[in-house]
Amino acid sequence: MRQAMILRWALAVVATISAAYNWAQPLPSWNEGPAKQAIVKFVNDVTTQGSPIFVASEDRIAVFDNDGTLWAEQPLYFQLAFMLDQVKASAPKHPEWKDDPAFKALLAHDQKALAAMGPKPVMKLLAIANSGMTTAAYDRTIRDWIATARHPKFDRPYTELVYVPMQELLAYLRGNGFKTFIVSGGSIEFMRPWAERAYGIPPEQIVGTITGTKFSIIDGKAVLTRTPKIDFIDDGPGKPVGIYRAIGRQPIFAFGNSDGDWQMLQWTAAGTGPRFMGLVHHTDGQREYAYDRQSRIGKLDKALDDANARGWTVVDMKRDWNKVFAFQ
Amino acid sequence: MRQAMILRWALAVVATISAAYNWAQPLPSWNEGPAKQAIVKFVNDVTTQGSPIFVASEDRIAVFDNDGTLWAEQPLYFQLAFMLDQVKASAPKHPEWKDDPAFKALLAHDQKALAAMGPKPVMKLLAIANSGMTTAAYDRTIRDWIATARHPKFDRPYTELVYVPMQELLAYLRGNGFKTFIVSGGSIEFMRPWAERAYGIPPEQIVGTITGTKFSIIDGKAVLTRTPKIDFIDDGPGKPVGIYRAIGRQPIFAFGNSDGDWQMLQWTAAGTGPRFMGLVHHTDGQREYAYDRQSRIGKLDKALDDANARGWTVVDMKRDWNKVFAFQ
Repeated sequence: MRQAMILRWALAVVATISAAYNWAQPLPSWNEGPAKQAIVKFVNDVTTQGSPIFVASEDRIAVFDNDGTLWAEQPLYFQLAFMLDQVKASAPKHPEWKDDPAFKALLAHDQKALAAMGPKPVMKLLAIANSGMTTAAYDRTIRDWIATARHPKFDRPYTELVYVPMQELLAYLRGNGFKTFIVSGGSIEFMRPWAERAYGIPPEQIVGTITGTKFSIIDGKAVLTRTPKIDFIDDGPGKPVGIYRAIGRQPIFAFGNSDGDWQMLQWTAAGTGPRFMGLVHHTDGQREYAYDRQSRIGKLDKALDDANARGWTVVDMKRDWNKVFAFQ
Repeated sequence: MRQAMILRWALAVVATISAAYNWAQPLPSWNEGPAKQAIVKFVNDVTTQGSPIFVASEDRIAVFDNDGTLWAEQPLYFQLAFMLDQVKASAPKHPEWKDDPAFKALLAHDQKALAAMGPKPVMKLLAIANSGMTTAAYDRTIRDWIATARHPKFDRPYTELVYVPMQELLAYLRGNGFKTFIVSGGSIEFMRPWAERAYGIPPEQIVGTITGTKFSIIDGKAVLTRTPKIDFIDDGPGKPVGIYRAIGRQPIFAFGNSDGDWQMLQWTAAGTGPRFMGLVHHTDGQREYAYDRQSRIGKLDKALDDANARGWTVVDMKRDWNKVFAFQ
């Protein structure tokens, strides 16, 4: 088969050039140092044919938390800001909310109370607010909000608050045959409309919290509508479960930034063969935010101790990144 | 950037040769006729640049039912055969089962009763039987069974009962930039160990029924263990919901074979733009099985009426396939 031979040859050429091209300057927004070194060494070791810890391409599964790992999460998870707007807009239809603590905290912009109660009570309000909405209408709501809402500190669209070094890392991994996934406590619907452009991660590679939906025929047309039930919470011990359900392979590379990612990192570490576990440590109060053990949002305490004890890679944002956001 | 230019050129060469190569002889096990014609025309129309119904590569999502669509499902769903063996093996630990109708039907090989009660009661028994088992141990159990069990009629390993024409169709779609998914009423764990080899579909592209799992640390190691709860049933109206949760895009191509696939086909049809809906009609009692409206397994009734009314493609196995299984 002459065609097959030419095809194989051309593929080999592409692979070679592509490899050279990707290696030209990996991770330019990362300063030289132990974090970048650890990443590049790991990727080199698992992708070099003949390496004692070579990993076949199909097993190169990399998972990333979203809030605080791929984009910012202060002063409040961005999805909470969206929810606030949604819940406010539908409040007139729900007079019974006036005594609900989560609703009162939302209206009062009481971020301390909101952070203390965690995302669940607010997600319940939102689930009720949008119950009965079709998934298509909900998707438009998110797209509209993402297009217009602005971050309170940086006065930029939220999607500009993605971390350039992490975008580079995602592209670098994919360039080396990894398949990249988001595994977030946020809801799948909230991330899907913008994650492909922001991170190069398509909707089907986004694992997250799942709200109930049900199938019906409305006016002769098949639709999915939202129910008020939360079906699955993809946070903490839910993250390895979410990975198992949606991906079905144990990742060999995982990145998080908070105790909500601890179990995902532990489960990644528990696999056989080479493993990379990383944490983004928010140490940069100038360019971004500085927080860890005492933070109400993105608390990093037990996972940090474990990372230090087990030699996982801890990225010091201030020291390791020469750029945080593209606009800076 | 000279490297980038060469890379682009080489990629173009590969794309051209690859396209020519794939088109040499598509779907050889399909007889010339309306079904094959409809498939090839659809794929041509959505992949040809400049075509009025061209679809971008990222939106070429194709979903396939498994039982009765990609492999056989008679005389009993193969997963039920596996479950029977599993439940039997753990019966000594569950004396309370002796009065359970599903257990009695299993022991008596009462396929009529089993089919009548559907998979749920048996799945409950299985969930209890394997509750507490780690996901890794469960995976080994499935691999062992798949390697040794044999189909009662054909006396072959079950994995030899995959349909060659559907394997060709999956490869043909992927060769044309489609991403192929399984969306099955069977459980994700049961399909993952062998679907990649049988169909070229990796674990992360398998959507199915989900049993509960929970994260724990056992002997200092992170593990997932099975719980007795069924978290999600990916059948009938659950299929579009499963697609929404796991894929997040409305498919443009869907194939099923029974009323359990009807809603998946309806939801695929409800999207905007070009759509292909197909049904495998089991008409070949010689080479496989002949069944439809009256069958206890894989009943095809309402979906067949709808397909005929709406002009969906109905594959007549006897007429449209010149080969069913590879061993024939």
